[in-house]
Amino acid sequence: MSEEQDEAGSEIQELGGLIRSIPDFPKKGIDFKDITTLLQNSDAFRQVVDHLAHRYADKSVDAVVAAEARGFILGGALAYRLGAGFVPVRKKGKLPYKTYEVTYDLEYATETIAIHQDALKPGETVVVLDDLLATGGTAGAVLELVEQLGAKVLEVAFLIELTFLKGRDRLKSCPVYSAIKV
Amino acid sequence: MSEEQDEAGSEIQELGGLIRSIPDFPKKGIDFKDITTLLQNSDAFRQVVDHLAHRYADKSVDAVVAAEARGFILGGALAYRLGAGFVPVRKKGKLPYKTYEVTYDLEYATETIAIHQDALKPGETVVVLDDLLATGGTAGAVLELVEQLGAKVLEVAFLIELTFLKGRDRLKSCPVYSAIKV
Repeated sequence: MSEEQDEAGSEIQELGGLIRSIPDFPKKGIDFKDITTLLQNSDAFRQVVDHLAHRYADKSVDAVVAAEARGFILGGALAYRLGAGFVPVRKKGKLPYKTYEVTYDLEYATETIAIHQDALKPGETVVVLDDLLATGGTAGAVLELVEQLGAKVLEVAFLIELTFLKGRDRLKSCPVYSAIKV
Repeated sequence: MSEEQDEAGSEIQELGGLIRSIPDFPKKGIDFKDITTLLQNSDAFRQVVDHLAHRYADKSVDAVVAAEARGFILGGALAYRLGAGFVPVRKKGKLPYKTYEVTYDLEYATETIAIHQDALKPGETVVVLDDLLATGGTAGAVLELVEQLGAKVLEVAFLIELTFLKGRDRLKSCPVYSAIKV
């Protein structure tokens, strides 16, 4: 890694100070990472998107794939910045056309997410983006959907990684990057 | 309106051809406008965001405000393009900090949406953005939330307007713009 990249990385890590922790949300014992305080700061929002875009600027990314809802915010901005298309992954029943679905485990339940069958062409290069890497369940399911369409995942990127949850260990099929580690 | 703007407007209107109509979704009698086919087209996505940004380029927009989930995609991209912050409006219970809420009527039910109380400062200038203007219920509720925070709405903008539903008539408190009229 070059010194320039090191420096950009540490500047982004410092933006983590703009993320607000909300204790016991959505339930007792969870320390929720609230990124809205970063997103509403125009300079910080721009820096985060530019930082991510810099990683993929010369990689001919065809599309950014992101899961609803928070993933759409940075995902839309990154797709625009890269000159790529945007492909949404949504909860089952929300996408109106023919879909592929994947069901995965949450702590006390399961979740099913879907992608349109014609959202990506085989061989296209995509970046998968989400705001938070916790246990990796959602991201792993998104990767399955993208792979089902035959697209190639350049990297799965996160704004924040909760390293103690070791979600990275569940994402073995492609490189994983997180801008801010907590 | 200059000729240049007229031309940009008709180019955008033509992009409407990339929007897919899905009959009887989510229920019988509704002709759903599926914008994913436009968003996944990198050129079209860029043109739409640039077109919207052009309207506000010299207006010192502090933030783009958008409601979940689809509004986040274009909203995030537009905020980035304008160098503005991004403020999400979410369904009740999703935002973790102190919120203001507004309840509004849907066809056979009500919906409650919320904004963080510290998302905007009084006097800040915002653009409210959503993908679709139908009856105007959601956009009207978003405007109420923004006004409750004392921010000034420069315009409420939509990718698509279903003109026959006359949603525009419910949005009297600020200018309304739609890129594509159906």
